Amino acid sequence: MLYLKRIVLICCVLVAQSGFSQEHPNLILTKQGVKDIKANLGKVPLFDATLAEVKARVDAEIEKGIFVPVPKDMAGGYTHVRHKLNYLTMQEAGVLYQILGDKIYAIYVREMLMAYADLYPELPRHPQERSYARGKLFWQCLNDSNWLVYTAQAYDCIYDYLSKKEVKHLEKKLFKPMADFLSVDTPQFFNRIHNHSTWGNVAVGMIALVMDDDALLDRALYGIKDLKLDAGKDNDGGDIFVEGQKAGFLANLEEPFSPDGYYTEGAYYQRYAMYPFMIFAEALQNAKPEIKPFEHKNGVLLKGVDALLNLTDKDGEFFALNDSQKGMSYFTESLVSAVDIAYYYGDKDLSLLSIAKEQGRVQLDQTGLAVAIGVREGKATPFEKKSILLTDGANGDEGAIGILRSTKHDAFTLVMKNAAQGLSHGHYDKLSFSLFHEGEELFQDYGLARFVNIEQKNGGGYLKENKTWAKQTIAHNTIIQDETSHFNGDYEIGSKHHSDMYVFDVKNPDIQIVSAKEKNAYPGTLLQRTMVMLNHSDFEQPVVLDLMQVNADAKHQFDLPFYYFGQIISADFNYNKDETLHTLGKAHGYQHLWKEGEGGSKNESATLTWRNNNTFYSLTTTTSQSDKLIFGRIGANDPEYNLRPDPVFIVRKNTDNALFASVIETHGSYSTVSELAKNAFSNVKALKVLQSSKAYSAVELTLKNGHTYVFIMANSNASKTDKHSIAIGGKTYSWTGVYYFNKL
Amino acid sequence: MLYLKRIVLICCVLVAQSGFSQEHPNLILTKQGVKDIKANLGKVPLFDATLAEVKARVDAEIEKGIFVPVPKDMAGGYTHVRHKLNYLTMQEAGVLYQILGDKIYAIYVREMLMAYADLYPELPRHPQERSYARGKLFWQCLNDSNWLVYTAQAYDCIYDYLSKKEVKHLEKKLFKPMADFLSVDTPQFFNRIHNHSTWGNVAVGMIALVMDDDALLDRALYGIKDLKLDAGKDNDGGDIFVEGQKAGFLANLEEPFSPDGYYTEGAYYQRYAMYPFMIFAEALQNAKPEIKPFEHKNGVLLKGVDALLNLTDKDGEFFALNDSQKGMSYFTESLVSAVDIAYYYGDKDLSLLSIAKEQGRVQLDQTGLAVAIGVREGKATPFEKKSILLTDGANGDEGAIGILRSTKHDAFTLVMKNAAQGLSHGHYDKLSFSLFHEGEELFQDYGLARFVNIEQKNGGGYLKENKTWAKQTIAHNTIIQDETSHFNGDYEIGSKHHSDMYVFDVKNPDIQIVSAKEKNAYPGTLLQRTMVMLNHSDFEQPVVLDLMQVNADAKHQFDLPFYYFGQIISADFNYNKDETLHTLGKAHGYQHLWKEGEGGSKNESATLTWRNNNTFYSLTTTTSQSDKLIFGRIGANDPEYNLRPDPVFIVRKNTDNALFASVIETHGSYSTVSELAKNAFSNVKALKVLQSSKAYSAVELTLKNGHTYVFIMANSNASKTDKHSIAIGGKTYSWTGVYYFNKL
Ligand SMILES: [Ca+2]
Ligand SMILES: [Ca+2]
Ligand SMILES: [Ca+2]
Ligand SMILES: [Mg+2]
Ligand SMILES: [Mg+2]
Ligand SMILES: [Mg+2]
Ligand SMILES: [Mg+2]
Repeated sequence: MLYLKRIVLICCVLVAQSGFSQEHPNLILTKQGVKDIKANLGKVPLFDATLAEVKARVDAEIEKGIFVPVPKDMAGGYTHVRHKLNYLTMQEAGVLYQILGDKIYAIYVREMLMAYADLYPELPRHPQERSYARGKLFWQCLNDSNWLVYTAQAYDCIYDYLSKKEVKHLEKKLFKPMADFLSVDTPQFFNRIHNHSTWGNVAVGMIALVMDDDALLDRALYGIKDLKLDAGKDNDGGDIFVEGQKAGFLANLEEPFSPDGYYTEGAYYQRYAMYPFMIFAEALQNAKPEIKPFEHKNGVLLKGVDALLNLTDKDGEFFALNDSQKGMSYFTESLVSAVDIAYYYGDKDLSLLSIAKEQGRVQLDQTGLAVAIGVREGKATPFEKKSILLTDGANGDEGAIGILRSTKHDAFTLVMKNAAQGLSHGHYDKLSFSLFHEGEELFQDYGLARFVNIEQKNGGGYLKENKTWAKQTIAHNTIIQDETSHFNGDYEIGSKHHSDMYVFDVKNPDIQIVSAKEKNAYPGTLLQRTMVMLNHSDFEQPVVLDLMQVNADAKHQFDLPFYYFGQIISADFNYNKDETLHTLGKAHGYQHLWKEGEGGSKNESATLTWRNNNTFYSLTTTTSQSDKLIFGRIGANDPEYNLRPDPVFIVRKNTDNALFASVIETHGSYSTVSELAKNAFSNVKALKVLQSSKAYSAVELTLKNGHTYVFIMANSNASKTDKHSIAIGGKTYSWTGVYYFNKL
Repeated sequence: MLYLKRIVLICCVLVAQSGFSQEHPNLILTKQGVKDIKANLGKVPLFDATLAEVKARVDAEIEKGIFVPVPKDMAGGYTHVRHKLNYLTMQEAGVLYQILGDKIYAIYVREMLMAYADLYPELPRHPQERSYARGKLFWQCLNDSNWLVYTAQAYDCIYDYLSKKEVKHLEKKLFKPMADFLSVDTPQFFNRIHNHSTWGNVAVGMIALVMDDDALLDRALYGIKDLKLDAGKDNDGGDIFVEGQKAGFLANLEEPFSPDGYYTEGAYYQRYAMYPFMIFAEALQNAKPEIKPFEHKNGVLLKGVDALLNLTDKDGEFFALNDSQKGMSYFTESLVSAVDIAYYYGDKDLSLLSIAKEQGRVQLDQTGLAVAIGVREGKATPFEKKSILLTDGANGDEGAIGILRSTKHDAFTLVMKNAAQGLSHGHYDKLSFSLFHEGEELFQDYGLARFVNIEQKNGGGYLKENKTWAKQTIAHNTIIQDETSHFNGDYEIGSKHHSDMYVFDVKNPDIQIVSAKEKNAYPGTLLQRTMVMLNHSDFEQPVVLDLMQVNADAKHQFDLPFYYFGQIISADFNYNKDETLHTLGKAHGYQHLWKEGEGGSKNESATLTWRNNNTFYSLTTTTSQSDKLIFGRIGANDPEYNLRPDPVFIVRKNTDNALFASVIETHGSYSTVSELAKNAFSNVKALKVLQSSKAYSAVELTLKNGHTYVFIMANSNASKTDKHSIAIGGKTYSWTGVYYFNKL
């Protein structure tokens, strides 16, 4: 405690040395930017429309008056919502003051800031005690940081309108104390590699730039120096301090981003982190261009925007990697900002203009103006999402996310997660995949168990089912050994490992392959999964071939779930539904699954056909007679209906060596208006394992038209030029490269 | 059998007397119609677009060739689909021949008819033995009749192209035998009051008009005379012969339609029946105008089109009354035809043009031309769906369907079924309701248990779960006594009764009321349900007040289910989820419900809030401490996944006198993009029963803003002018008319 107090004192001294030398605005809006915007008012539709929308919203708020209540509520509650609305409105009002020159907006911001300056000095930490880092205005410092990131912009915009006395008052009573509170007073929040810390760093950095406070800026960029604190966990179970780890904005830019711009927590948190990263980079570029934020780590921020846009389905919705609330998309404000900033400070990528056009609004600054002018001039080119590999890890060597997309209009998107743990928001889902058809989930990743900002559901915070269900392996389309999650569901162990990419080859658009290995999830068991997106004239639509190769030291029970959606139309195997429903297991998420029924196939493969959104889908999977085919549904041990009752189909094998081979087809259609069913049947007659070993996985696929194909994957030599030759059932297959695919 | 043979002989004699005197085409297209169409080609966008679409489809079929396979398959199978495609294509090809004059279309129809004339004489009844009235081309006569209704039109269109020899050949080998087969050879199909018979009557009538065969026409219009056959049941459990009942087209027009144009089987079957009714009426109007088909029963056919358009939600989808496959809408072909015919032969109702515009296509005849010209000329006015009462029963005295719609943009639609049994497709759901918000189901009627035309699901036919689940009372939002369906689920008993309308008052758009009584569903128990759509400034959106008044001779268990959709957000009462799931009961549909949990309220009311499609909904229902609040889900005893796993909330009371009073609110919104939750809480603080008797139902509604309202319904005097005065808890309420609603 004493130690902390000393740091505060030192900071205050440093701060006192800075003056009022800088020009304003110069954080996001610049003087030149404002000049350009004023010169173009009424001439740039997208900009003008956004401006009109923002003006209407702010005017309505000004009409209602200023409310700065004493903080009390959790997320979703009145004081939380009010303070959030306040910072959003202040930021917009500041911008309106600059652009429109109407001092009503400056007055609104000034009065509100004064109210905060009255309130803040006496505020204790927030009465809600749930956070590892309680804020003052909100229940957690994260939200206080949000407040400051937005409010710093408002302050910058009206800075020149304020008297020196007002500036001094606000900085003394409100901004400096808050910056210290968020950093030196709460180091467990500020000095981490984590999206929370990024917000904290940026909050402090933004206000430092407006106040022209170099010491604070230094703290924001490089963290609190020489801090020694006991390690601990945050609310999500993440490590607070890792020995020897750097801190501050730049470290947060280096660590969680891979060289490809993938953020290890996943797209949902990357979307959230993108706003502070990009807005502060813009601010630094304006105020301290010598820092070259957009060039840092080979331009990782601009790559991050591109990565994020590629981590979306056809509708622009982010893949549900790790903790992710579904439905979040690039239509969110932070992506509007990110796209505009990336366009302006990047190399004016015209395909970003088409995203901006879809978004239908722009950031109200020089970046948004440039984008809106580009759109007006018809310069937008399509943003083509391609099959792409996004490496994970600060050095790009901790596995990767592999995305395969079918060539025709992005109709199919397969996302395979062969990456690192993903920090505290990570799920135990090595080699898992999800599949989208026309922007709808064909096989889903469950996402998170949380209702963000819905007060009735644990104040909008994470639900206990996030840990007991959503993070567990069984909640994902990947293999589970002995009803135990990967790494035994242990965060420490999981964080030490990552999957290893084996092959990512999308050169041939008709045979795209992603393959990866996982040797640490279950010690003694080697998992390798190869997924192929196959476009072939024998199928109406592209199909996915899924080869999950399992080789273990000893016999185990292996489950491979497929979280489909829709209604079962037919099965070519026998199954019985249960007369009373029991849970499928007791722990590791199994306690949340109802077992609805079970069957088995007498053939070498089993086909299940279902219908969803008036399209038919079929899964054909290889079986032996001892395999169990299980029907389940989420929702057991869910006392408050926190989970969605989605269905699952699970293939269960007891073995030490198995190839779970499956073909996933999309076929036909149904119309409830014409009542015509087209192509309602699977095209697959049989799927057969030809070889299952660490060296090779081979299957034979026979179609109803009589055609038979063989696919062989070389599992331990990914060379494109090496030759292979193996004998299977009296026939010798010879080929060059990692896979063989041919008609028999 | 001997008797039947004699009828056939007589008919053949009569047929032989007719000649080739009539002009062609004169069935649907007329000579003048063709002339008008030709004169307008290329000038009427909607007509031209439909023509181009039809031409492309037919040209593609002609390209493929002619296939007339030996009948073999059930619905969904190859021969079924092929013969269906044949008649649809022939009809269109015939029209193209008339409009475009290209004889390739005439040749296509002629060649196909010749192939049928070769096949037909030797055909036995269809090998699939499932139908009570097996066809020859299809598994049931119904489909054979479809074939003839369409093919008669094709025949009429190419009649003049054929040689007399060809005409004689086709009539002798194909059309006359088929007309006899569908009528005198299968009287159990032809001579009923049923949609099947309507198709049969029309098939025979259409071909009779083309062949100018008055005897056949007489049979079509009035049925087979003096037929005596044993009674029996059809596949759906419907009575085949009812003593003294008339038959034929005109009887089918009189019986099942109410004077308001409501068809007693429900909207789904009315939609299906509308095509033969309307197309034959058009044919009669063209060929035998003296029959005045559109004036029959005070113009019931035109009223029927209006009724059907009103029996849809905001998206134009039909309400799921009785056996109904959801998603069927007025975009179906039969409604395109019906709308065009109603416009042309009715009084040129300009609001029908807006439906036609939405439909985006027209019937290719003089009616479609008139509609398309009207649309082109911008004459379309909005089709405003209103709150409406549609009486049931041939004389309009067998109850009614009551529809309440909120005034702003049809945002809410309440459908209450207070009607008759609905023939063999009826459900045991007296006083049930369904509710729609913005075209989406808020509280659903389950619909049917069938996958129409999906071969894997029982050949596309009705599933056994239709009887064991979908028809049962528990599958509906209405009261169930002692876990037994209305009328004990007995069709004979149910068919004898109907509910009685009590009040339908929609004059005040802010307080719309529908109320009905049911005294026969459970002998000794009087059920009265009053539903109010209330638009009040204290609520963000219109709310529904539901008063289900139950008065029984003795104590019983009463269940009132609410089939909601979406995810539970909160409950203000305690409940426990079950650790293993059992069915809620053993019979009458209860065996298909999983009991998920149960609770009870210590207050006088209980509130449940859920979210669906990013809107919040709340149900507040009056409770006593002994009431059970049950959470359930459909899907038990469903060995083949024929049922949808939809959720239900059930209020259970053990009593001889109860008022199940509920308030249904729609409130707020959630965005997965902004992650903002607006107005996520119910506005209701408490709901309290003030009086529950045969004479009066009274409730007190207290809102969170402190306002309290009292609603009283006079249950045994619907007069608008009579005065009431009752004392409740020391306070006297006096009013005039059937209900009281005021702020306390
Ligand atoms: Ca995941
Ligand atoms: Ca999507
Ligand atoms: Ca609808
Ligand atoms: Mg979508
Ligand atoms: Mg997950
Ligand atoms: Mg029903
Ligand atoms: Mg809809």
